[in-house]
Amino acid sequence: MDRHALRPIRPLGLLEGIEIIDQRLLPHVLHWAKLKSASEVARAISEMWLRGAPLIGAAAAFGLALALRDDPSDAGLESAATRLAATRPTAVNLAWASTRVRRRVAAVSTQDRASAAWHEALAIAEEDAAANAAIGEYGLALLREIAVRPGRGARQLRVLTHCNAGWLATVAWGTATAPIYKAQAAGLPLEVWVDETRPRNQGTSLTAWELGEAGVPHRVIADNAGGHLMQQGLVDLVIVGCDRVAANGDVCNKIGTYLKALAAHDNGVPFFVAMPLSTLDLELADGAAIPIEERSAREVTHLQGITADGRVIEVRVVPEGSGAANPAFDVTPARLVTGLITERGIVAADAAALRALADAGSKLSA
Amino acid sequence: MDRHALRPIRPLGLLEGIEIIDQRLLPHVLHWAKLKSASEVARAISEMWLRGAPLIGAAAAFGLALALRDDPSDAGLESAATRLAATRPTAVNLAWASTRVRRRVAAVSTQDRASAAWHEALAIAEEDAAANAAIGEYGLALLREIAVRPGRGARQLRVLTHCNAGWLATVAWGTATAPIYKAQAAGLPLEVWVDETRPRNQGTSLTAWELGEAGVPHRVIADNAGGHLMQQGLVDLVIVGCDRVAANGDVCNKIGTYLKALAAHDNGVPFFVAMPLSTLDLELADGAAIPIEERSAREVTHLQGITADGRVIEVRVVPEGSGAANPAFDVTPARLVTGLITERGIVAADAAALRALADAGSKLSA
Repeated sequence: MDRHALRPIRPLGLLEGIEIIDQRLLPHVLHWAKLKSASEVARAISEMWLRGAPLIGAAAAFGLALALRDDPSDAGLESAATRLAATRPTAVNLAWASTRVRRRVAAVSTQDRASAAWHEALAIAEEDAAANAAIGEYGLALLREIAVRPGRGARQLRVLTHCNAGWLATVAWGTATAPIYKAQAAGLPLEVWVDETRPRNQGTSLTAWELGEAGVPHRVIADNAGGHLMQQGLVDLVIVGCDRVAANGDVCNKIGTYLKALAAHDNGVPFFVAMPLSTLDLELADGAAIPIEERSAREVTHLQGITADGRVIEVRVVPEGSGAANPAFDVTPARLVTGLITERGIVAADAAALRALADAGSKLSA
Repeated sequence: MDRHALRPIRPLGLLEGIEIIDQRLLPHVLHWAKLKSASEVARAISEMWLRGAPLIGAAAAFGLALALRDDPSDAGLESAATRLAATRPTAVNLAWASTRVRRRVAAVSTQDRASAAWHEALAIAEEDAAANAAIGEYGLALLREIAVRPGRGARQLRVLTHCNAGWLATVAWGTATAPIYKAQAAGLPLEVWVDETRPRNQGTSLTAWELGEAGVPHRVIADNAGGHLMQQGLVDLVIVGCDRVAANGDVCNKIGTYLKALAAHDNGVPFFVAMPLSTLDLELADGAAIPIEERSAREVTHLQGITADGRVIEVRVVPEGSGAANPAFDVTPARLVTGLITERGIVAADAAALRALADAGSKLSA
């Protein structure tokens, strides 16, 4: 499992930019796009060429390095940080990565700032990959434990996931998918229910594509189907990613996550959230304060697919004259979350556990 | 409000067939299709040219009349009834309408059977329209009551609906939409949140189209969004239709209904089901015994839309090689249902209330 969704480009020591997969064309076309400036990175994040909280955090860090290459002044840094932070208001990783880079370069001379920022971005990317690998190991242990629960029988584990928290959403491994890829490597039989994830179809376009490329058995389902599958005993656990987790364990993730959490709770199905610590926002007391991005109605009224003769085109599905609303995220209350799978182990979604986790992290990095 | 989704054709006393809107082409094209035989009716139901529990019940009754026109024998009747019943296993109206027609013609001479069946089908259609109008009146009273609840303020009522239980799903008025159309006629301001209803998009294609034609304010939302809107206080009540209601009040309806009922319950939002008595199945103790139709994976992997230059085409959205599962209905437990809006008033979703309702009906029709 060495798939990466972001490649730094630095020929001969020059900071040229980054390469990312233009995810708007998946699953039909795999195209790597070069982003050579902070404004190109900002545009790519805003237009969702790349997405996923961890990945946009890392990309924003590289974006700041590119901004400092072009203007290493404090004003240039702040201007670029503001522009990058505005691209997606919900994910906390953008602010987190930006703060890390700014702290790193604060005391550095202007001529060395770009290089220092670049190295911080590389560190963020490497830490993300390592964190996800660790999430995968803790998640694998969880899957093994659930697989042998009494009454399950010998059939393969069935995991439901929503949206894409795969390697396409991170620097490597993915968060919610890391335990799945680790389980596959360990020979633990499983099948994944892939929520389509309207309106942008990240499940259909990205998660199904990822799992297919990796040879992981999976079936796509309409977002409407998960509750019924749980009622029928066809889901052993749910694992999703997150865009931001508040101090009390409330989880902000892709719109529709809350509905799956309700159904899991109603049917006694474990509901886990894969959460790298970069996604934890202890400054927010609870989920009510998380800004929910409202995206374009066009994401609901139009969608992209491929024709029988191989052309990727957009079609309108809503009648002319009908409007649409498009909140992009929702908040799942901590009471519905069985646990958070982090790079330091699985913890309860409550204030005490998250505080202890963060304190342990501060000691580790101190 | 005189829109009808089914027109009997009987020139010069001959039973020619029925005309129905081919709903597969909506919202892009309004096309009336003629169905001239029982097998054409069966095919149209199976392929969902028409759908909606009340409408397919009425259409099946006309189909039986056409079957008797061509073969009035007992064997011909049973063969046609079996073929029609197999088209959609979940909706109880098919069996209900078929039983009514067969009882009506049982003691009739073969030469008069087709005509007797035709009149029974007409009666079913007329009763459906009348039942829905009555549901509309009871529902309007409910909307008026909710509109003046303390703390709501003066803004318009916001109603969320799932799938299409509109006039396109019935002979006239619709079930879940009847209160909405009555409210509009009465000048009660409201806005409708229209669940897209993947995978077949009946909300987008049919409900949004209906409401747009009628000038009712509405916005389409992804199926994922309803829970978040309820959390935000943006939904005053939910009204959905149903395909079958069990004796204990469990409601079988379009896949995804259960998720919205969970969210409504979690947020204290009233969740009502518009239920003509033809949809009540007292022979089923609870919803667990309702057969859930599994439809083609292609409904998930492909979808239809209109291109910028006006061509209605189908595109694939799921990667090649990824499979899909497609359960078409789910069961909402009675405990999540605030009430059932019937043509005889609003009743609780429990065994005693439904038994009393059915007994009162038997006395009325006795």
